[in-house]
Formats: sequence, C-alpha cells, structure tokens
Amino acid sequence: MRNIKITIEYDGSRYKGFQRLKDNDNTIQGKIEAVLSKMADEKIEIIGSGRTDMGVHAYNQVANFKTNSSLSVKKVNDYLNNYLPEDIVIKNVEEVDERFHSRYNVKQKVYLYKINNSKTQDVFLRKYSTYIEKPLDIELMKKASEYLVGEHDFTSFASSKSKKKSNVRNIHSITINKNKDMIDVFVEGNGFLYNMVRIIAGALIDVGLHKKTPEDIKLMLDKKDRSKASDTAPAKGLYLYSVKY
Amino acid sequence: MRNIKITIEYDGSRYKGFQRLKDNDNTIQGKIEAVLSKMADEKIEIIGSGRTDMGVHAYNQVANFKTNSSLSVKKVNDYLNNYLPEDIVIKNVEEVDERFHSRYNVKQKVYLYKINNSKTQDVFLRKYSTYIEKPLDIELMKKASEYLVGEHDFTSFASSKSKKKSNVRNIHSITINKNKDMIDVFVEGNGFLYNMVRIIAGALIDVGLHKKTPEDIKLMLDKKDRSKASDTAPAKGLYLYSVKY
Repeated sequence: MRNIKITIEYDGSRYKGFQRLKDNDNTIQGKIEAVLSKMADEKIEIIGSGRTDMGVHAYNQVANFKTNSSLSVKKVNDYLNNYLPEDIVIKNVEEVDERFHSRYNVKQKVYLYKINNSKTQDVFLRKYSTYIEKPLDIELMKKASEYLVGEHDFTSFASSKSKKKSNVRNIHSITINKNKDMIDVFVEGNGFLYNMVRIIAGALIDVGLHKKTPEDIKLMLDKKDRSKASDTAPAKGLYLYSVKY
Repeated sequence: MRNIKITIEYDGSRYKGFQRLKDNDNTIQGKIEAVLSKMADEKIEIIGSGRTDMGVHAYNQVANFKTNSSLSVKKVNDYLNNYLPEDIVIKNVEEVDERFHSRYNVKQKVYLYKINNSKTQDVFLRKYSTYIEKPLDIELMKKASEYLVGEHDFTSFASSKSKKKSNVRNIHSITINKNKDMIDVFVEGNGFLYNMVRIIAGALIDVGLHKKTPEDIKLMLDKKDRSKASDTAPAKGLYLYSVKY
C-alpha cells in the first residue's frame, strides 16, 4: 500500500477539534477521512501529528494515510480541495516511505499564539486571535518566557485532565514578536502536554498585564500544581504552526 | 443638538450592506442606529460617508449623527461597543462642528482590494480577500493602473445601475503592494461610482493573468461602455479603507 502525507490548514472555529471520536462527527479528521474514503472507494483512516482542541486552528497540521489508490498526488490534492469544506485546505500531498508515521516521527512542533492588543478589537481577527485591550508589556513577557525555555516538569502548565506518564518536556524556544496591534508568540518544543501552550499564553498575558512578575513563572513551574499557574488562554488564539520530522 | 462623528470597522460578510433601506433591516447602519437610539432614548439616524455593498468590509467607515444626549464621547464609544454585534466595532467617537456632514464633506476616499494569490487559498482570509490561484503579473498590473489614474470618464467602470449625472471622477493614485501571498490594491480618489473599485480590481486581475494588456485598460476607458470592461471582482475582497475630510 502507498503511504501518503498531507499538510492541512484549517480554521477550527466551527469544529469539535482535529481528532475524530466517532464516525461522521464534526471534526477535521472526520471531514478529511470522509472525502478520502469516497475518493479511493475504500475506508481510509488518517493519522494526525496530534490533536488540536475545539476552536484551535492550524497552518500546517500533518497527517498520513495508507491507500490502494493509484491516483497521483496532484489528483489527490485537487480532489480533497474540491470536496472539503472551504475552512479546510490541503496545502501539500506527497508520497512517503511506508515507515513514516505522522505522530511517532515528530521531532519538533511549533505553535503560534496570536494576541490582538489594541484599544479596539480588530473585527477581522475576532475568531483568529485573543483580544486584550490593556497594553501588554512585551519586554516583561520576553523575560518571563526565558524561565520556560529548556527542559522542565510542566505539570503546572498542563490541564489536570492530562494523563501522561511524565510531564517533562523540552521547550526549544519562545519568540514574541509585535507587529502593530498583533503580538505573535511562537513556542517550539519536542512535545506538548494538554493545553500547555494555552496555559503558557495565559501566564505570559498575566505578566504583560503586570498581574504576575516574570519570576512568578518560575515559581509556577516549581510548584508542579496546575492550580498555581495562570488561566488557560482562549482556543481561538492558538495555531498549530508547523511539525518537523 | 450635538453633532457626533464615529469611525466604524466592520466585517460585511453577513450584512446586506452599510445603508439601511427600511427599519430594522440587516444593515450596518440599521444595527448602529438601533443601539444609539436605545442609548439616547430618542430616534437617531446616522449619515454615512457613503454606502458599501453586501459583503464589502470597512476599516474606517465614517458617519455622524445629531443627538440631545449629554453622554461623554468615551461613554458613547463604550456603549456602542458593548451592545453592537462583534463584527461591528466603533474605533473612535468625537464631537464635531454642527456643520460637519459625513457625506457632503468628503474630500477623498481610499479603498483597498485584497487578493490572495497563492497555490492554495488561505483559509483565514477566505471571507476577507479574493482568491486567485494563478500567479499574477504585478508589474503589468502596475502599468495598467497608470492608465486609470487622473481625471477620466469612468462609464465603463461603473455598474450599469449607476445613475449619476456625470461619470467623470478623479483617481489620485493606485498603489499595488505584494506581501507574501497577499496583493493589496489601494485606490484613492475624490469620489467613486457604483462598483467602480470592484470593476477596476477585475480589470487589473485580467491584466495580471495576461487575459488583457495594460493598453486594453485605456481602450476600456475610451469606450465608455460597461460591457467593454472586465467583470466585477467579488465584494469580499473590498474594504473602505479611509475617508478624508
């Protein structure tokens, strides 16, 4: 069987999330599988690089699937974009080695958290960013982010629903850019716990608003207790930005 | 009575357009008047700088209204943003001279037409730009735009529904910028005919696709006949960008 890798951009606003939980549910995975199965006339299941929550977006989610179809990658790409809803777009289709696995082979993921920081909310970004009216102190946010970079136990920064054996993860970098009224927070790491980037974003926002100090972030980490960290920032500001293999 | 000027940003996607045609219709003007009338406990009508069509957006639409209310401009601004739907935002409120009229006093308007020109459509811009897959030739588009700048009879570039006494208008400038996959076309002028910017955008896209030459644009103008120009580009790519007084 052929092993096909696809790169997916989606607006998560009206979906329950990436991962299908039952047949034909309102998930991005469910929509893609339905179209692929019709195309190939066989039941196709895709393996995503990981789930994204309800309302979370993606610029470059990656998935792969096995198929007996002999259609060219170009035809698969065109078929998908013809039949998928307009808020899911396939940016790339390529044939890969049979051993490639979208989830197991992930080396690094990059998430982007977008904050619209201005006197009035940008109406065009209301579903695609988190709005904060009060000016955020970017320099303090950058200072706070330094405490999070590196290998740490991120128990305080994971949903209490998270059930991983270990909560140790390695954040390679956090980059905060401001362009006019938009603040982009890029978080690169080898793996992420449930809600981790949204809790990091919530903590950085608290620091930017002077509700917390940069040093409080270190204390939050040390406590290893979800209740000691900041609130989870809204899903609509979060994007799975890229997946590296 | 006080004369109040407001600056409005809106996502036109789900509205019939800016201008109210009957009471309580689904227009931006109708929504704003309903909130203002409740706030001031008197019937308030706003005067817009001009209409925008169904699906057209605005970064800075301007309107003014007369009121007996003694509320501060800050309170008016906050009240409007509290009660308006989230796709209409009031960016500024100021008290102006009683003679100020949003439509009669316009000196210049700037429209922006956004084109998403890439191999795959950006899902986040699908309602906020026109998607063109084939690469557009920006240099030819710039050359074509030069024929439109200046004072011309724009009959070929106005909807045949337009019923103005004169179709002569003065375009001060057309600026075309490309940033990654987005092409922004800014059109500045002293006044615009019905659908004029969208027909200009349609003609520039035809040139960019090599369906027309820059010189064809001059011929279109000379014909003074709507049927000789290009198709009207979609509403969703158009923004009223600013109004100068």
